[in-house]
Amino acid sequence: MVPGLTLKNLLNIEITGSGTAFPERGRWVMNNDIHQMIFGDNWAEKMAAKNLRPDYYETELGLKKRYWTHTPGSTISHNELTSADLMIEAADNAIKDSGISKYEIDFVIAVTITSPKYSTSMGPFVAGKLGINAPAIEMKSGCASNIFSITFAAQLLQNGARNVLITCGETTTKILKMNSTMAYAGGDAGSAIVLSRTDANDKGIVAGYLNTNGFYSSYMGVNGLMPPNQIDLDNENYYLSYVEGTEEFLQQAWASTPEILYKASGIKPDEIDCLIPHQVHKKRTMAAAKAACIPIEKTINIIGEIANCGSSTILVALDNARKNNKLTNNQTALLIAGGGGISWGGLIIKT
Amino acid sequence: MVPGLTLKNLLNIEITGSGTAFPERGRWVMNNDIHQMIFGDNWAEKMAAKNLRPDYYETELGLKKRYWTHTPGSTISHNELTSADLMIEAADNAIKDSGISKYEIDFVIAVTITSPKYSTSMGPFVAGKLGINAPAIEMKSGCASNIFSITFAAQLLQNGARNVLITCGETTTKILKMNSTMAYAGGDAGSAIVLSRTDANDKGIVAGYLNTNGFYSSYMGVNGLMPPNQIDLDNENYYLSYVEGTEEFLQQAWASTPEILYKASGIKPDEIDCLIPHQVHKKRTMAAAKAACIPIEKTINIIGEIANCGSSTILVALDNARKNNKLTNNQTALLIAGGGGISWGGLIIKT
Repeated sequence: MVPGLTLKNLLNIEITGSGTAFPERGRWVMNNDIHQMIFGDNWAEKMAAKNLRPDYYETELGLKKRYWTHTPGSTISHNELTSADLMIEAADNAIKDSGISKYEIDFVIAVTITSPKYSTSMGPFVAGKLGINAPAIEMKSGCASNIFSITFAAQLLQNGARNVLITCGETTTKILKMNSTMAYAGGDAGSAIVLSRTDANDKGIVAGYLNTNGFYSSYMGVNGLMPPNQIDLDNENYYLSYVEGTEEFLQQAWASTPEILYKASGIKPDEIDCLIPHQVHKKRTMAAAKAACIPIEKTINIIGEIANCGSSTILVALDNARKNNKLTNNQTALLIAGGGGISWGGLIIKT
Repeated sequence: MVPGLTLKNLLNIEITGSGTAFPERGRWVMNNDIHQMIFGDNWAEKMAAKNLRPDYYETELGLKKRYWTHTPGSTISHNELTSADLMIEAADNAIKDSGISKYEIDFVIAVTITSPKYSTSMGPFVAGKLGINAPAIEMKSGCASNIFSITFAAQLLQNGARNVLITCGETTTKILKMNSTMAYAGGDAGSAIVLSRTDANDKGIVAGYLNTNGFYSSYMGVNGLMPPNQIDLDNENYYLSYVEGTEEFLQQAWASTPEILYKASGIKPDEIDCLIPHQVHKKRTMAAAKAACIPIEKTINIIGEIANCGSSTILVALDNARKNNKLTNNQTALLIAGGGGISWGGLIIKT
């Protein structure tokens, strides 16, 4: 593992609000629905004939339900919800949760790897739709994007911003094909948090760790050339392409992050009240808890409810922790994320 | 004008290197070449018949030459240079100029509104190609993106990074049609800087000002839905669409920025050694100099050499200032940018 960047003591900062957005909330796409879409009405027989276990995704990976804006592999349409729509709704919920006026938000960070637009920065776009008059950017660094965005927000708060909105939206279904395992693994979600300045100097980002390895950048990505062209469209090159070979590196990246954060902060595993990992599959979540020496009861595990919603996932998990009182005031949380990019990292946050 | 975010005293920072990249450096596309592409071999007659002045673009807008990776309106090809190629070459030049080892770069910020990829963050991608093992992101906020990126780099340097590479690449030609004024106005370029920590506390970002207005986000942008789809491709919706109505706002945005920076820093116009504006057309540059109360001799005006290369432009101008000794050590520079997003802002930098 290369060293990466460790940040310390970005304090006097608190999470004042969080929110999520899902297409048709409460109407999940179930594993059996996907079996049916791939294999047809007699999927049970067809899967049996191919020696495929219908329960595999739940039993082995913990995948049960997910929200979709779009049926993977079908033609995308202007009538479907976009990642920007999800960002806007999630941001609206987070701002309401914070009780802060949108006029007091001094910066907006929009995060997505599945933007509905080329060229246009989702920062100003989403801020404009929310009626927020503040400087805004769009940023991304793979699945760990929001570890990065939180450190950027914290630095802006330390340099004069009163409140920073991070809003993230992902529509992974629009880059997934139906004929692959990834159809089961991908979900769509918006998620947002409001970070605010506080007088309390025991609240904030005690330690942050950021890293990427671009050697693996092309192992998981959409290969089609941008702006769009007919040949890549005909060849279905605007779907996510995945090449084996990153798994060992990713396991190491996830496993090495907690120790770096413990060392940088002086905080010990038994001081962590809540582990909030990016959600890939249940094995990764279990491995993260083990590497962090944190019992599974203190670990947020919502992969069964949402699947992997790209960079949006970890803020959905953070919102889940807050709303279910698994992360309350005056506690300590450990966040870990890693995935495509390859980007990875983590945060220790005192609330 | 809404307030925006003002940052002060991001000090102990210096620009240690800068560099650029152009396709086929030295082989410019001239105004007459574009006349010929649009009107054919007998362009002089055809333009006269339409009452069009061939000298208009040079006389009125200051546009003479530009570098193109691509002929606007033609089918894009995997054989052409991409914005990532331009980022990599510019970064390589900036790193050489800085004399800093790539192993001492602790963060990479890639900036583009014309990425060659969907989903994939250009941060890790470009860092990987450069052999830089450091955390990396891609970010954008329209034409002022690099005003934002420099403040982000400065904050990372204040929080432990030793050196931060900002590398930017734009291929505006790939989103421009040939049958419009914009074909004359757009150019392609890569540009990069290395920002480094220094013990000198009189060097750095004395004041920064960042703002966006998303109300105008859709006035200038690529309207086609992402990921790519056949209908938008057939309807040529992956080209830049421009709606009248932003000019007055942009003029105000540019005009109001110097005063905000002077007020925040206590620096007076006669203390500025070099004005580095984003390059749109010569009228905008003249207006910027006037608003900043800076004589035109101290103003970088390279629009005639490169045209508007999107967010890459201002770092090309900064490199030009450094390489031509218009900005040397122990001087003060004012940077101003504004454009699509709408994003705008500026910096006062002590070198």
